[in-house]
Amino acid sequence: MTPQRVTLITLGVADLAKAKAFYATLGWQESGSQEGVAFYQMHGAVMALFGRADLAADQGRPGAALGTGAMTLAQNFATEAEVDAAWAEALAAGAAPLKKPEKVFWGGYSGYYADPDGHVWEIAMNPFWPLQADGSLVLPGAPDVH
Amino acid sequence: MTPQRVTLITLGVADLAKAKAFYATLGWQESGSQEGVAFYQMHGAVMALFGRADLAADQGRPGAALGTGAMTLAQNFATEAEVDAAWAEALAAGAAPLKKPEKVFWGGYSGYYADPDGHVWEIAMNPFWPLQADGSLVLPGAPDVH
Repeated sequence: MTPQRVTLITLGVADLAKAKAFYATLGWQESGSQEGVAFYQMHGAVMALFGRADLAADQGRPGAALGTGAMTLAQNFATEAEVDAAWAEALAAGAAPLKKPEKVFWGGYSGYYADPDGHVWEIAMNPFWPLQADGSLVLPGAPDVH
Repeated sequence: MTPQRVTLITLGVADLAKAKAFYATLGWQESGSQEGVAFYQMHGAVMALFGRADLAADQGRPGAALGTGAMTLAQNFATEAEVDAAWAEALAAGAAPLKKPEKVFWGGYSGYYADPDGHVWEIAMNPFWPLQADGSLVLPGAPDVH
């Protein structure tokens, strides 16, 4: 049985220096980055930035045109004000606005932006999903998952 | 400052029932799924499956053709044998092989497959990144991140 787990999220980027600058402007700090790849520690998992052509080759399909948008990353916040602040900060850092945060049909508050490489981030407040004290998200009633 | 955090990863899928069946075959168990969306608890974060057209609309660009491949998810394992087992299990469940696991230049062992919607998963053993007891990944020397 495959573990119910993601330990690394890799974003293929056109220009590593430019991508690193965007996340640095958002306040992200690298840990253990190496030549050609940047790593960011998150809660129990890691995000990486890696050249898109290198990523295609690593996937065993050099030259492939890799796409974005169908897999999105979200940050949940406790309040609408925090979502608005994250939205303003991302746009100031050079993100492309996709949907300004607004109240949504499922009872929360959500917006979307794209990073300089088109990777899509959702920023949201979901009143039904309170965050843990350490910022992690555990679904109400979910079993303990390792 | 934006928190260094991902709380939700959403995969846009063409056919929710088919996508759910793939992850169920891998052993993933849903928690709190709702009409039109499936949720899976991971370590401190959640994975969701959501219709691709709905996801495009939610992003504020209805009708957009969303792409895959430039953002990848990885599962780190402790041994090469575990990587091989995950590879066999994924292919048996209907994943498309991209790169059979092999020893790679950075000193580890890694392969890639795509789920039925083209979402790319890496399965890897990285000897420099030992997993925590709870299956989470903390980079050597990384600060405590919330």
